[in-house]
Amino acid sequence: MLQTRAGKRTAQAAVKIAVEMVGEGLVSKEEAVLRVEPGQVEQLLHKQIDPNAKVNVIAKGLNASPGAAVGKAVFDSERAKVLGNAGEVVILVRPETDPDDVGGIIASLGVLTSRGGLTSHAAVVTRGLGKPAVVGCEALEIDLEKRMFEANGTIVKEGDIITINGSAGDVILGEAPLIKPKISKEFDEILSWTDEIKRLQNWANADYPRDAKRAKELGAQGIGLCRTEHMFFEEERLPLVHRMILSETDEERKGALEKLLKIQKGDFKEILKEMDSMPVVIRLIDPPLHEFLPQYEELLERVVELRTRKRLKHEEKRELEEKEKRELEEKEKLLTRVAAMRETNPMMGLRGCRLGIIHPDINEMQVRAIFEAACELKREGRDPRPEIMIPLVGHVNELKVVREQLERVAHEIMAKHGVEVPYKFGTMIEVPRAALTADEIAEYAEFFSFGTNDLTQMTYAFSRDDAEGKFLFQYIKQGILDANPFQTLDPKGVGKLIQIGVELGRGRRPELEIGICGEHGGDPESIKFCHELGLNYVSCSPFRIPVARIAAAHAALRAGEAERRRYL
Amino acid sequence: MLQTRAGKRTAQAAVKIAVEMVGEGLVSKEEAVLRVEPGQVEQLLHKQIDPNAKVNVIAKGLNASPGAAVGKAVFDSERAKVLGNAGEVVILVRPETDPDDVGGIIASLGVLTSRGGLTSHAAVVTRGLGKPAVVGCEALEIDLEKRMFEANGTIVKEGDIITINGSAGDVILGEAPLIKPKISKEFDEILSWTDEIKRLQNWANADYPRDAKRAKELGAQGIGLCRTEHMFFEEERLPLVHRMILSETDEERKGALEKLLKIQKGDFKEILKEMDSMPVVIRLIDPPLHEFLPQYEELLERVVELRTRKRLKHEEKRELEEKEKRELEEKEKLLTRVAAMRETNPMMGLRGCRLGIIHPDINEMQVRAIFEAACELKREGRDPRPEIMIPLVGHVNELKVVREQLERVAHEIMAKHGVEVPYKFGTMIEVPRAALTADEIAEYAEFFSFGTNDLTQMTYAFSRDDAEGKFLFQYIKQGILDANPFQTLDPKGVGKLIQIGVELGRGRRPELEIGICGEHGGDPESIKFCHELGLNYVSCSPFRIPVARIAAAHAALRAGEAERRRYL
Repeated sequence: MLQTRAGKRTAQAAVKIAVEMVGEGLVSKEEAVLRVEPGQVEQLLHKQIDPNAKVNVIAKGLNASPGAAVGKAVFDSERAKVLGNAGEVVILVRPETDPDDVGGIIASLGVLTSRGGLTSHAAVVTRGLGKPAVVGCEALEIDLEKRMFEANGTIVKEGDIITINGSAGDVILGEAPLIKPKISKEFDEILSWTDEIKRLQNWANADYPRDAKRAKELGAQGIGLCRTEHMFFEEERLPLVHRMILSETDEERKGALEKLLKIQKGDFKEILKEMDSMPVVIRLIDPPLHEFLPQYEELLERVVELRTRKRLKHEEKRELEEKEKRELEEKEKLLTRVAAMRETNPMMGLRGCRLGIIHPDINEMQVRAIFEAACELKREGRDPRPEIMIPLVGHVNELKVVREQLERVAHEIMAKHGVEVPYKFGTMIEVPRAALTADEIAEYAEFFSFGTNDLTQMTYAFSRDDAEGKFLFQYIKQGILDANPFQTLDPKGVGKLIQIGVELGRGRRPELEIGICGEHGGDPESIKFCHELGLNYVSCSPFRIPVARIAAAHAALRAGEAERRRYL
Repeated sequence: MLQTRAGKRTAQAAVKIAVEMVGEGLVSKEEAVLRVEPGQVEQLLHKQIDPNAKVNVIAKGLNASPGAAVGKAVFDSERAKVLGNAGEVVILVRPETDPDDVGGIIASLGVLTSRGGLTSHAAVVTRGLGKPAVVGCEALEIDLEKRMFEANGTIVKEGDIITINGSAGDVILGEAPLIKPKISKEFDEILSWTDEIKRLQNWANADYPRDAKRAKELGAQGIGLCRTEHMFFEEERLPLVHRMILSETDEERKGALEKLLKIQKGDFKEILKEMDSMPVVIRLIDPPLHEFLPQYEELLERVVELRTRKRLKHEEKRELEEKEKRELEEKEKLLTRVAAMRETNPMMGLRGCRLGIIHPDINEMQVRAIFEAACELKREGRDPRPEIMIPLVGHVNELKVVREQLERVAHEIMAKHGVEVPYKFGTMIEVPRAALTADEIAEYAEFFSFGTNDLTQMTYAFSRDDAEGKFLFQYIKQGILDANPFQTLDPKGVGKLIQIGVELGRGRRPELEIGICGEHGGDPESIKFCHELGLNYVSCSPFRIPVARIAAAHAALRAGEAERRRYL
């Protein structure tokens, strides 16, 4: 416990002391930056309990995953899923967790266990998910049947509100007031020094203008990944996307695409304006189209229900209502379409650039929207820097065909507007074959962005959706893997592919811009690795940018030190 | 047409002439072997029309995929699927085919089209599937509405029997008598010479003793892949497998495993006996367990139907029959279990060695069965050579943990029987990371078998199930890919990984036994590549062994020639 508190104090204190020491000329800026560990920074970035609040700490456990959370105590994962999915805020309370609980953990705001240490299942999973957790809280006497626990005389029943403080290990009765993370003046100063030190740029993954704005405020120097399909999922747009996918005539499809074009142009214009004069990597549509349609199983259930009712009514010489008849007809039709599009392994199916080859009009619409937006901004005196990223390339010809087609569109739009927009075409390196043939691919790419999430999936043959729930945490617990490769880049396997990709790519095109845009772009160990490989940038979610900036500065300083030692 | 006939004559004639010339001392055995092309051999291995039969050739097209087939003419893929799945033998007749027809092609014995050339969709797909096809048969006037065609005055309606000869391009009215492929005396002689020439061994993929026997007759020098799970799917065993997977108590599970042990021991004993003194690589259970259970969608349909009926009857104050009630209860329970086991991307999920780590008892049962069988054979004076293959390894620790556990079992069984059986433990290299870290993996593996099918899937991020129907043939047609990478090994991507794997593996363990066991083991181009990389063997399906032997001999001779040229 004491150690934890010390740790917490250190985070805030270290920053303050470091800045003061620089002010007094006692240490250099470099030394000051080195005094702040990225892991400490992380603590400063989570929700905390208001230090001025009076709270009722009823038990203490291990501070397994930082941050604080308030919610209803729930004693099993099934119920946590039901309530969590219904929008309730819940804290999962268990003696300990196992792989079957992963769904429940995901549905909860935080986890509290009475057994297990800092490498227990609950600890590992919550840290991976960035959710607060207190584990090994032995004072808790949990009674699963009665759905309650007793802690030092206090009784908490299912549904009672509790607060957990994963940074300190505290369990608190009732709702403690939380404060959102805020960056102090001193911390901001330290962060500004990192820009003078680090060689890696810090870019952000941002799909919306509001995320881009937040990222810029936190020091992002570009957008490394703007996922366009998230825009497709928004409520008012999804019907248009459905119409485009399910259209029966070319006119219908074109009509839907025209409407999407206008909307996407607006999206892109805002984000490019927000990031004026900075690079914005826009990834063309990536997921398989069936992800935009209703789920097959849901449709099947409804169709079977209606069919059964129709048959039973028919036996009784009655009829379905008109409304039901129409529904059955429509749903049967939709079911057939969705069935035809289903895939056994969707992440390795008809997605990414493959979509662009089979259905070129979606990509064309997107590139048209990007260049319409950029040209308008240019004419308004601004400096948009779009970089078009073609995903899931495994063979150079995929990139070649798609790029050539889309570059024609880009030129057409620029000619129409009579302006030139600086742009790049590039690709995501996320398929092992792309890394292995990066020399060929670099012929047609001005930039590579390593999609380390998918690259890890392919390199390990781990489907993240399946692996984390079913065996990955077990692997970590048994010591088969040291770390979750989706959190910390695997240097020997995935890292070797990245190294091969960088060497081959730069060998063919020395000025190639290279970055990574998986979650690893915010992980200190992985950032160090990217620095050593000589990448240009790491891109991560906006809220992790401060951690990534410190980590990038540390990587540069430590590499410099090592170099100095070599030359002494 | 003439060219084709010449081609066909050449195949049989080349063999005969070559053998005669050796007899007369005109050419060496090496030169004779070089005169027989693997592609020609392939023609000799397919069903042919009895050359003495009188047949009614009604049209001629292009010989797109070799072999002959007899079946009912069917004019669309949907009907071909329905009839084919119902056990009818059908020939799919279409103006041309497209990706939507793949299911229909699979359900048919052969394909006939009126349009398209040797690289048309129908041609490419059928060659990939090893089914006869005649394409671009322009004399055919197909009327899809009336479901019939006219060819030079003859009318063929849906359901009429036709014969196609894909080796010659003939379309024949009625059922022509077919003869099974037979290896002539001369061809057998040529094949025997390959053993003196080739450096690569030819092993076979065989799951059953009858396949092993056939493979040995055709010249196989070992079994490169015995897939144990195929045995699990057999009718009388599947209920046991269900019981094992769904058991609710340890006793129930153990009971099911005990019964499976006896059956598997019998399987292994027969195959090891058949291949006496030759290596038999037995792969431990590989697919995810849910593949052995009923399909989720089928269960869901039945459950929803019963639930709907229950609800409706309840409204009418009636009851489901007792039998239905019981069924609903059972099916609901099963549905929950199957739902929990489902995976989004099953080929990257809980399978291979991951199963062995999460459920060690299945692997233990299998290894027990192998060593019980081998020890008994040894005591009967035979010489079994089992090689235990642990699949889907991506990290050395997976292999280490599983191997250590299983080697203990092996020793225990051998101690019990008081005999020593020569054995190896090794792994399939099918996950990119395994190839990239092959030095570490070779520490715990006496052999590597490159599973080039899965390795191709991971390296390209192609799910074969999804890719071939949805975009792969389109890629080949558009020239994005030269060839189907599942047929001919991709040298630049997958091949580079194999090369890395061989170099790292042999670097750590020079005597490492290395082979491949994907379909590529029977493809001449791929065999050449394996020879150049210095593998020990290629393993393919029994019926392709003759092609593979010729190809292996050619690879050795051509490499020797190239070497001689280098030293001249």
